[in-house]
Amino acid sequence: MEEKKVLHPFDQAVSLVRNSDTYTGRTSDLYENMVGPYGGALAAVLLNSVMIHPESLGDPLALTVNYAAPVKKGEFQIKSVPVRTNRSTQHWYISLSQDEATAVTATAVTAKRRKTWSSQEKNMPEVKHFSEVPPVSVKNLPVWFSQYDTRPVKGSIPPLFEIKGEQPFTSAHSTQWIRDNPARKIDFLSLTAFADSPAPSVYVRRNKFVPAGTVSFTVYFHATKEELGLSGENFVLVDVKSSRIHNSYCDQSGEVWSENNVLLASTSQVIYFKE
Amino acid sequence: MEEKKVLHPFDQAVSLVRNSDTYTGRTSDLYENMVGPYGGALAAVLLNSVMIHPESLGDPLALTVNYAAPVKKGEFQIKSVPVRTNRSTQHWYISLSQDEATAVTATAVTAKRRKTWSSQEKNMPEVKHFSEVPPVSVKNLPVWFSQYDTRPVKGSIPPLFEIKGEQPFTSAHSTQWIRDNPARKIDFLSLTAFADSPAPSVYVRRNKFVPAGTVSFTVYFHATKEELGLSGENFVLVDVKSSRIHNSYCDQSGEVWSENNVLLASTSQVIYFKE
Repeated sequence: MEEKKVLHPFDQAVSLVRNSDTYTGRTSDLYENMVGPYGGALAAVLLNSVMIHPESLGDPLALTVNYAAPVKKGEFQIKSVPVRTNRSTQHWYISLSQDEATAVTATAVTAKRRKTWSSQEKNMPEVKHFSEVPPVSVKNLPVWFSQYDTRPVKGSIPPLFEIKGEQPFTSAHSTQWIRDNPARKIDFLSLTAFADSPAPSVYVRRNKFVPAGTVSFTVYFHATKEELGLSGENFVLVDVKSSRIHNSYCDQSGEVWSENNVLLASTSQVIYFKE
Repeated sequence: MEEKKVLHPFDQAVSLVRNSDTYTGRTSDLYENMVGPYGGALAAVLLNSVMIHPESLGDPLALTVNYAAPVKKGEFQIKSVPVRTNRSTQHWYISLSQDEATAVTATAVTAKRRKTWSSQEKNMPEVKHFSEVPPVSVKNLPVWFSQYDTRPVKGSIPPLFEIKGEQPFTSAHSTQWIRDNPARKIDFLSLTAFADSPAPSVYVRRNKFVPAGTVSFTVYFHATKEELGLSGENFVLVDVKSSRIHNSYCDQSGEVWSENNVLLASTSQVIYFKE
């Protein structure tokens, strides 16, 4: 008898079917955001198109995703092209389209690592352990929040959907524990999605919801596959700060940490906002 | 009589000639690095192909450049494609090739800004004024250093080319004042090049030269054209830190500041190194 396999909702959201030279995917209702899918899940499906590509070399090193237009519910096509393959690095251009129009573009670099002199330069912020932080209520939040167990330590989103237009906070610094719900072993795809999970810095700083959306999102993967394996199904800590909020655009950048102080990824993004 | 126009070396390095649907450029001997041109100048010429494109909309907002292969001396072709044009943003894919092989890929977002709630979240590091910091000697350094007046405040490169294999420093934090030499009015192109000017974090941390090269480089432009105009020909301060140096790759990220505390750009990069 065959083993009955139930896909984790995240695996379903990032799954692709290979055609001749493109992949077909489908937006997941479980990862819907306010307009279109959660950007972190979209970034993950783009990266997946590289990782499952028959010519793929090494592991993800860098990913930049540009959200050019809203992605509508339903099918999309992804084309991932290994533009240049070297001995230890490979450069990719990726585009996601619907009805023949490009909605998302991305570049990725995959690489083989060798053992070298190494040093973790940043230290994990000292925060309460996730077991001491209550998960946020996903009530009234976009659907994708239900696919995560999010435990905000500092300046995080959910209250912003309730407390509108109060005093601005003094900073846009935002720190949260997060893991998939139900729990799922961390891999490069979920790490990508975690990196996009903090609220836009403009919400956090102003303690107010304003229409906003990521324009460009970058992840540098520091973790090896082995380190991700050691992280198991545990929570990760995502810690981001903004440097400037200025005339329609703001940035944020920071780190994704394993529970035991391994820097898994660095991330940055620039976000459009209205008003 | 016509005014005699002498191009600044940087303007020459980023200049392009438009063909039917590509641009032709040429590497500048003045911006040579150890292997191929200075990456900051290459990033600038890629951005230039977007800014001078007849369909270009708005000002640069985000740029990611992936260095896929060494660029040889001589001519190169750049193709910049406006993949998606919205009302206030435009998404670009750019590739630089030589002998029909892709050597550099990039994505860019250009945008129109509106006046909104704004806040500079980071403060400029408190450092000595550039007038109190002596410029580095460019003796024994790659040619491109001669095109800049670089004044290292903390952990910068040049000594690393002389003091090899000494004790590692305790951090990869690097801070320097820089401007074009001869002086040149700051614009989005020179800002891009400044952002790439700090030494690879692995050199700074180890106080040692090791073969290294940028793999992927990102700039977020916070400054408006007006703010750049106000910066004139002044020095900017570039301040970068590393978060992790790990098995062949290290990162660094930070900010480019105007002399008077305006955050002009944020930047990040991931760098390959040997050993």
